[in-house]
Amino acid sequence: MCKKIFVAVTCLMCVHLNAQTHPFLFLNKQDATTLLQATKNNEPTSVFKNSFIDTKKEVDEWVGKDVDVPVPVDPAGGYTHDKHKSNYMLMFNAGILYNITGESKYALLVKNMLLKYAELNPTLKKHPQATSPFAGHLFWQSLNDANWMVYTGLAYDLVYNYLSIEERKKIEQGAFKPEVDYLTINMKDWYDRLHNHSVWACAGVGIIGLASNNKDYVDMALYGSDKNGKAGFIAQMDNLFSPDGYYTEGPYYVRYAILPYILFANALENSNPKLKIFEHRNNILQKALLTCLQQTNINGSFFPLNDALKEKDFTSNELVTAIDIARNRYGNDNGLLSVAKKQNRVSLDKGGLLISNALKSDKIDNYFPYKTIESKDGVLGNEGGISVLRNGANENLSSLVFKYASQGLGHGHFDRLTINLFDKGNEILQDYGSARFIGIEQKYGGRYLNENTQYAAQTIAHNTLVQDEKSHFGGDTELGQQYHAEKVFSDFTNTGLQVVAAEEKNAYKGTQLKRTLFFIDTIDGRKYIIDLFTTQSNTAHQFDLPFHYNGQIMSTNFKYTTPKTLETFGKKDGYEFLWKEAEAKVNQGMAQFSFLNKDKFYTISTLTNDSTNIYLTRVGANDPNFNLRSETSIVFRKNKLNPVFLSVIEMHGFYDTRNEFSYDSYSNIKEIKMIQQDESTTVFKIVLKKGALLFAVANKNVDTKSVHEVTVSAETIKWTGPYYYKKMTN
Amino acid sequence: MCKKIFVAVTCLMCVHLNAQTHPFLFLNKQDATTLLQATKNNEPTSVFKNSFIDTKKEVDEWVGKDVDVPVPVDPAGGYTHDKHKSNYMLMFNAGILYNITGESKYALLVKNMLLKYAELNPTLKKHPQATSPFAGHLFWQSLNDANWMVYTGLAYDLVYNYLSIEERKKIEQGAFKPEVDYLTINMKDWYDRLHNHSVWACAGVGIIGLASNNKDYVDMALYGSDKNGKAGFIAQMDNLFSPDGYYTEGPYYVRYAILPYILFANALENSNPKLKIFEHRNNILQKALLTCLQQTNINGSFFPLNDALKEKDFTSNELVTAIDIARNRYGNDNGLLSVAKKQNRVSLDKGGLLISNALKSDKIDNYFPYKTIESKDGVLGNEGGISVLRNGANENLSSLVFKYASQGLGHGHFDRLTINLFDKGNEILQDYGSARFIGIEQKYGGRYLNENTQYAAQTIAHNTLVQDEKSHFGGDTELGQQYHAEKVFSDFTNTGLQVVAAEEKNAYKGTQLKRTLFFIDTIDGRKYIIDLFTTQSNTAHQFDLPFHYNGQIMSTNFKYTTPKTLETFGKKDGYEFLWKEAEAKVNQGMAQFSFLNKDKFYTISTLTNDSTNIYLTRVGANDPNFNLRSETSIVFRKNKLNPVFLSVIEMHGFYDTRNEFSYDSYSNIKEIKMIQQDESTTVFKIVLKKGALLFAVANKNVDTKSVHEVTVSAETIKWTGPYYYKKMTN
Repeated sequence: MCKKIFVAVTCLMCVHLNAQTHPFLFLNKQDATTLLQATKNNEPTSVFKNSFIDTKKEVDEWVGKDVDVPVPVDPAGGYTHDKHKSNYMLMFNAGILYNITGESKYALLVKNMLLKYAELNPTLKKHPQATSPFAGHLFWQSLNDANWMVYTGLAYDLVYNYLSIEERKKIEQGAFKPEVDYLTINMKDWYDRLHNHSVWACAGVGIIGLASNNKDYVDMALYGSDKNGKAGFIAQMDNLFSPDGYYTEGPYYVRYAILPYILFANALENSNPKLKIFEHRNNILQKALLTCLQQTNINGSFFPLNDALKEKDFTSNELVTAIDIARNRYGNDNGLLSVAKKQNRVSLDKGGLLISNALKSDKIDNYFPYKTIESKDGVLGNEGGISVLRNGANENLSSLVFKYASQGLGHGHFDRLTINLFDKGNEILQDYGSARFIGIEQKYGGRYLNENTQYAAQTIAHNTLVQDEKSHFGGDTELGQQYHAEKVFSDFTNTGLQVVAAEEKNAYKGTQLKRTLFFIDTIDGRKYIIDLFTTQSNTAHQFDLPFHYNGQIMSTNFKYTTPKTLETFGKKDGYEFLWKEAEAKVNQGMAQFSFLNKDKFYTISTLTNDSTNIYLTRVGANDPNFNLRSETSIVFRKNKLNPVFLSVIEMHGFYDTRNEFSYDSYSNIKEIKMIQQDESTTVFKIVLKKGALLFAVANKNVDTKSVHEVTVSAETIKWTGPYYYKKMTN
Repeated sequence: MCKKIFVAVTCLMCVHLNAQTHPFLFLNKQDATTLLQATKNNEPTSVFKNSFIDTKKEVDEWVGKDVDVPVPVDPAGGYTHDKHKSNYMLMFNAGILYNITGESKYALLVKNMLLKYAELNPTLKKHPQATSPFAGHLFWQSLNDANWMVYTGLAYDLVYNYLSIEERKKIEQGAFKPEVDYLTINMKDWYDRLHNHSVWACAGVGIIGLASNNKDYVDMALYGSDKNGKAGFIAQMDNLFSPDGYYTEGPYYVRYAILPYILFANALENSNPKLKIFEHRNNILQKALLTCLQQTNINGSFFPLNDALKEKDFTSNELVTAIDIARNRYGNDNGLLSVAKKQNRVSLDKGGLLISNALKSDKIDNYFPYKTIESKDGVLGNEGGISVLRNGANENLSSLVFKYASQGLGHGHFDRLTINLFDKGNEILQDYGSARFIGIEQKYGGRYLNENTQYAAQTIAHNTLVQDEKSHFGGDTELGQQYHAEKVFSDFTNTGLQVVAAEEKNAYKGTQLKRTLFFIDTIDGRKYIIDLFTTQSNTAHQFDLPFHYNGQIMSTNFKYTTPKTLETFGKKDGYEFLWKEAEAKVNQGMAQFSFLNKDKFYTISTLTNDSTNIYLTRVGANDPNFNLRSETSIVFRKNKLNPVFLSVIEMHGFYDTRNEFSYDSYSNIKEIKMIQQDESTTVFKIVLKKGALLFAVANKNVDTKSVHEVTVSAETIKWTGPYYYKKMTN
């Protein structure tokens, strides 16, 4: 993140390490006694008990066996990668079972594995499959080594009492020291970054440090390898989240990043409660957790901003542990319980038991308490942000996501001012997310695929404007990282209408982009989004506005041609991955495009008062390994000086396949009229079959107290603030 | 259906009509009293009570209102079509509520509507939107008029007692007579067909006849417009099902056809129990119901054989009523209860209440008792059939569908010897089903789309062999209707291996097609299907074997090229709808193709011991209205004299996105070896990573007592019966 500013850490907090009674990092003796009790009660089932039984079953399969600790050979998805990954979870879980059950067979299992790692780790060099500068030893990337350290460090604390002094020494010197040294010395620059991968590294070094009473490690964990506070865990808490808890890489990544934060914070709280780590920066960890949960669809999947795999949702392991620890540290939260109910399993710790007990109530909501929410980006909260406009309740919730944030580091996409739309749990206007099959060796070892940067990250893969077929910032992450979009105004106080406007001045040199979105509460059983996208430049350009719709085309009100052979939509910046399935040239008026998603109809109506070309595209060209999903979009193209894109996205009707009826399957929009569009004001009218909606937007003075006046059809309208909206009978 | 043979009806049964106490067709006074009691009991909820409340809510919206009975104008999906459709359901439901509650407002609602129809119907001529020779009056097709008659006839009986003699006369003469006359006189040929549409017509005429004590109507209903038994309901019971209860159009259509059968049979049983209609032809209606339920996927959707919409499942209204009446007539059936549990609603009659009471048990299975089942086609059961091979239980059930039936009338597809595969509730090897958006006006008035016959019905749209890029029978339904495929043998007695073979000698003149399928029980946690497809002809031809796979390509073991522009795979017979996305020429050996469906891997391995071309295709070319779904296939092409297609379909592994692991994602097949292939015997070996599977198939004498002998690698194997199978250690 550019313009990093350190806040909150004015002096380094003092860490005292005392010889602690092990275990003390993930759970302690007293917790273990309580948990044992919970496994023995007579209730027929509890989520905790089921989770305990599941874990025990997994671990018992390995008890008494000689677990392989292989020399690293394979990339992600391959045997040695997967083995080391399952090994650290096995050690962690066996360590927990040892404490809860008191059975030494579990501790023996962990001990034998730790001693094998103590033999293996000193022999390791750079992983043979490493393809990035951030190579690991046990794994192809250092991040995975850091994961190993976190869980293995916790496991070590859990069986510490079972080990002889000599065994401890062997493990600390053989299994841990080479890993800590590698990350903090050889990989110093990487270790000292302010980045989610390095959070894992600091947490790993810190947990090992606490478990082995090594103040040096703990200090490096908290304050960086130079122990000066410019790096390390505290700096990461201060610099990777905005004050709202928004994580600059996006919600998919905070899912992953939250875990080392919360696991290490939990260990710190247990060992050094004076640090008050959970209160740090106004409970930033709690804010981060709640913010990322708000940035999910009702099916629990994270909004696929930036690099994100759509199959991940809030039932992921990371969020089970995070929610359970948060319950223990921050107290009860009914919203979290609704998520825990869907997770249907808990971590085997105090928080997990608290959650499990709370889940016995039959009064837990089926849905997280979703609401309209704005999250500022940037450490100081001054680098744009994300607005999520919500409308409807429960299974009928609609979420309009508007991204005007900063680049989002290396996993960021070139998608300034993009929108996504979710409705009834389905993604209606899509973001491709990332091109990756994590954990599948056949697909480039589970890594990000080449098509990720070549297509998925490009601007055309998003629902935002592309100028001259070039991605924002020329597709240059470093350049994009220097700038962020800016919110112009937003207003969510009017229950009938939510509005947000944002602008981007740097994505294209010499061109300003501005998007204003109105989300109108149900009218005639329909929801409407008004999408006003304006451009400002001294020269004419070609602009493309794609809507990546998800559904089957029902009808269009314009004629198009479909080609006999398919050609690509363009040659570069992601265009080369799109087949051009249809094209149209439309005249003055309104172009309408209807599609069906599951059992609901959606219509996009666009003003075509200037020359507009329309294209229907499908992903799949130049994809020799069939790495991409076959997804579709409609693209509106205007080639002139400062075109305006004014569209209405209408959600309507119902397709009842059981009774073979369709209801309200036609658009209600009769006309879109641009009344005035100049430097100071934009005034337009959406004419419905019954009544009309009149909008005015102030383009210069958006102060809430500013007074504006325009004349529409000989009638003067006057308003205060950045916008005006009126439902009209005609 | 060709070769129609009348069975079971040697003389016409005598129908006596006596003046009955109304209502008596759907329910009677005594039933109504019991049902009222069930709505009043103190239980918190029952399915019956919920269904009653839902129906009451729907009907109450119209009580006291002037319901529109419009002059017919629109096709399916349009206002007048949908209005008449909802009107007949409203009259039927209001009639039921009148009897259960005793409240006359419901009868008044029905009466007013019936009187409006009595005014409207005498004025009607051929529907303005009729596009087929089977035009309706109220609707665009006569079938819908027949639907109207069934429900309106039942509604009339339900409110008969409320009407004055004069009102009855007006309704019988005005609302009903024009419809009965139209169907039995003007549409006589259509009415007297042995076809599911005409079942509705006979049921409609019969129900109206019973309700109005009109022996003439009832006789025409039972024995055809000439009352000679060559047509009518009894002939339809005798001629539209095979002795197993298989309905020649396929399971999707029996879902629809079963309802008029069962509603009219129910009315006949109530009025003329001596007919013993439910026992007719060895309980043929019960067999039909159970057979169609066996032909569903675990998610309840019907196997999409012939014209079928995939969104239809066994929770459709038709099957709710059918199952509830069957419960009352045929007694308790735990399998039906598992379906009723998913339907979660019942019809408001005696059977519905019985089902609802049974559903209070917590011991109802989650799945219908699926089993391997063979259904013969043809009235005498001698026109080929359908085998469904099953493997696994509950959510892990796999169903391999093999179709070697007759054409299936006008809704039949040209897909002799096709297979479909379902696994874990997902369709893995797909049948396109039909191209239709029923009830959506924008899509050709909800009718079958042109692409249905042009693509969906063509051979290339199925998982079976295409010779010289021409569909079976040249795509001529009449010709196809003259022939059926034949089963050669099957054996389901070996628990480790299920096998079925069938042949088709008429789809291509001068060419015999034969397919043998082995479904092997889980080996090493994997299921294998061995697919042996042979051809026999005097001349060389080009043969294409497509597998319409559903999933994302993971890997291939062969090199292919992907083109810069997409062209169609061919010019006609459905090929013109496929884009050619990749092609390969492979040499001697084995081609392997792996894909991922949801969380499971599938690999197709094919022997390429002769020259083989491979193509990857996608549906979507020449589809100007975007009526088709974008689906994919891999096509193996061999161009020589009598090629053999020998493939293994392997279901393996698991993609755990939560933990980012993939298990067993690689094929276990090392080699496919054809050892002998001649007129008498086919011998081949599938070499696995560990062990091998040896198969031999007798090509001439398939008698179960026939003795065969071949020599493989100097070793003689000898067996009795049509096939031999052995697991080998190597």
